[in-house]
Amino acid sequence: MYRPMWDRFLRACRREPTDTTPVWFMRQAGRYMAEYRALRAKHSMLEICKTPELALEVTLQPLRLGVDAAILFADILLPLEPMGAPFEFAKGEGPVIHQPVRSRADIERLRVFEPREGLGYVLDAIRLIRRELDGKKPLIGFAGAPFTVASYLIEGGKSSSYRLTKELMWRDPDSWKLLMTKVSEVVRTFLRAQVEAGAQAVQLFDSWVGSLAPEDYREHVQPYVAHILQDLEKTGVPVIHFGTDTTSLLELQREAGGTVLGVDWRLPLDVAWQRIGYDRAVQGNLDPLLLCAPKEVAIARAHRVLERAAGRPGHIFNLGHGIIPETPVETVQAVIEAVHAYARPPAPTE
Amino acid sequence: MYRPMWDRFLRACRREPTDTTPVWFMRQAGRYMAEYRALRAKHSMLEICKTPELALEVTLQPLRLGVDAAILFADILLPLEPMGAPFEFAKGEGPVIHQPVRSRADIERLRVFEPREGLGYVLDAIRLIRRELDGKKPLIGFAGAPFTVASYLIEGGKSSSYRLTKELMWRDPDSWKLLMTKVSEVVRTFLRAQVEAGAQAVQLFDSWVGSLAPEDYREHVQPYVAHILQDLEKTGVPVIHFGTDTTSLLELQREAGGTVLGVDWRLPLDVAWQRIGYDRAVQGNLDPLLLCAPKEVAIARAHRVLERAAGRPGHIFNLGHGIIPETPVETVQAVIEAVHAYARPPAPTE
Repeated sequence: MYRPMWDRFLRACRREPTDTTPVWFMRQAGRYMAEYRALRAKHSMLEICKTPELALEVTLQPLRLGVDAAILFADILLPLEPMGAPFEFAKGEGPVIHQPVRSRADIERLRVFEPREGLGYVLDAIRLIRRELDGKKPLIGFAGAPFTVASYLIEGGKSSSYRLTKELMWRDPDSWKLLMTKVSEVVRTFLRAQVEAGAQAVQLFDSWVGSLAPEDYREHVQPYVAHILQDLEKTGVPVIHFGTDTTSLLELQREAGGTVLGVDWRLPLDVAWQRIGYDRAVQGNLDPLLLCAPKEVAIARAHRVLERAAGRPGHIFNLGHGIIPETPVETVQAVIEAVHAYARPPAPTE
Repeated sequence: MYRPMWDRFLRACRREPTDTTPVWFMRQAGRYMAEYRALRAKHSMLEICKTPELALEVTLQPLRLGVDAAILFADILLPLEPMGAPFEFAKGEGPVIHQPVRSRADIERLRVFEPREGLGYVLDAIRLIRRELDGKKPLIGFAGAPFTVASYLIEGGKSSSYRLTKELMWRDPDSWKLLMTKVSEVVRTFLRAQVEAGAQAVQLFDSWVGSLAPEDYREHVQPYVAHILQDLEKTGVPVIHFGTDTTSLLELQREAGGTVLGVDWRLPLDVAWQRIGYDRAVQGNLDPLLLCAPKEVAIARAHRVLERAAGRPGHIFNLGHGIIPETPVETVQAVIEAVHAYARPPAPTE
C-alpha cells in the first residue's frame, strides 16, 4: 500500500529531497478551529497545557487538515512559573505577569530550575503525543528565545515599545547579562529535555526581537541565542530559529545558529534565502493574513512563495507568524492542499 | 553679529552643505514636556489642533531645546472628520473612529473636500506659525499617507494585524482603489494647501506600511504614494517620505518619491543610504527608546548614526519614530547638543 512520506518535514529541515514541500503552521491548533473553541469553553489555556491528555487532544486537532508536523500545544511563558514569576492569561488582554522583573534583586530571585521538576507536565505531554503519533507525523517542541521571554518578564505582558526591556539593557548591562544568562539556561535545558522526551525537532521563538537595531541584537542578544542553538544542534534534531520583523537581522540570526531559519512575509523568500545562504533550510513565508483573503488569492500567493523556493530542497512552507483566530478553516486546508499539489521545478545546481 | 544657519534643515533636505547636521524629532511637541502636559490639562488634543493660537503655542514649545525645525502641531487623522468619518481620542486607547469604513457604500459616501473649507483651521495655524517663526526656524507641514490613513478608517483605530484593511485590499480590489484614490486626493490637496499657506517642507507619514509584503506595497499602495509625492515635489518644497519597519521597502519607497527618505533604527544608516541612493537625502535613524537610556549611551549611539552619515551632505538627524511620553527632556536636549557639536569628517567624493 502506498504511504505518503510521513517525515517530509524532517527531511526538508536537513535539506534532503522530499516528494513534495512540507507544510505546517504556527498556531495551527487554535481558536480558528471549532473543536479547539469547544475545548476552550470547558478548560482554560493553562489547564490544557498542564493536562497531558488535553494537550494531546489539542495538538492532534489540526492534523486532519493535512499538515506535515504536529507542534506541541504549550506556551512560551510556561517556564515563568517555575522560575518564580507566575502569570495568567487575562481575558482579551494576553498574558499578565503578576510581579514583573524590574530590579537586580528581582533578577537574582529568579530560579534556574530542573525541567523535569518544573515543567514535567510538558515532557509528559510530549511522551504521550509521541506514542500516539509515532510513524505518522513528526512532533515539534518549542520554547521562547531569551529576548522575547525577558521582555514579558520585564514589561509584565506584551509591550508595544519594549521600553523597560531596552532601558534595562542599556542602563544596567550587568543585570541584563544575569537575566539573559538565567533565561537562556532555562530555555536550553528545557529544549534539551523536550528532545530527550521525544520532540523530533524544536523551534526557538524570538518573536519580538525585530524591535532591536542590529547592533543591539549583536551585543545584547545574539550570544545567548547562539549558546542555546549551538548546544541544541548537538542533539542531532533539527532546530528552527524563528523571529518576526527580522529583515535586517537575518545574517546575524544565521550566525547565531539554527538548522532552519524562519523568514517573515516582509522579504521575498528567494532574497531571504540568498542572504541566509543555501547551506541552511528556510521556513516561511506567507503573510498570515492571506489566510483571511479569498481562497484563490491565498493559493496564488502560496504559489508565489513556492516559485521563489525554486525547487531547492530545504524549504518548509509556513506563515510568517501564527494563524489568527478569524481565519476560515477551509482556506487553511485549501492552502495545505495547494502546497502539496504544487509541481516543483528541478532544483538549481549551484 | 554671528547668526547660526537658521535653514540648515532645508539645506540638508536639498543635500546642500550645512554648518552642522540639522536635527528635529517626530512628536517633539508632546507629553514628555511639562509645558505640553500643562496645556493638555486644560485642552483636549482636538481643541489644540483646531485653535490656531494653541497649535502655535504647542508647535513652538520644543524650540527652546535647540531643534532645527518646527513641525506643525496637528494629527494625521484630522482629514477624517471633513471626509465624513468623525473620530475622537479615547482616554488611553488612541483614536476611535465612530463609524469605520467597511463596505463599498461606506467608501462611496466619503467626501473629497476642499482643504480650505474642511481644514481651514490647520492652514490658519500654519500662517500664524510662519509669521511668528519667519527667518528663525523653518516650519514642516505633514499628512498621513493613504495606506496608514485607510487603515484607521477601516479598522476604526490602531490595529495590531490590519486584518480588515488587508482583507478589503485582497477581497475587493476595486473598492480598495476607490478608497485609496479618495484618500490620496484628500492628502495631496491638503499638503498642497499647507505649502501654499507657508509650510517650508512637508512630511508624508506612512507609519504602518511596514506591515505589508513588498509585492502588496507595489501593487496596492505605491502608485498612490507616488502620485502624491511627485505632485508635491513640483511645488519646490522638500518632501520627506517617512515610514517605519520598511527595511524591505526602501527601494520601492525611493521609487515612489520624496526629496528625503525616512529610515528607522532597524537598519544601519550607511546601509540604508547606499540602498536608497546618494541622490536623495535621508532622515533618521536613532531608536526612539534610546532617549530613555542613560544620557551617555544615547549620545554614543547618536554619534554612531553621525559616523555612518560619513559627513555626506543630506543627512537630517532624527529618530526612527516619535518621542515617547516617558522620555526625559534633559536627554533630548543633550542629544540635540551632541548632534550640533559633532565634528563631521569631509564628505566622501564618489
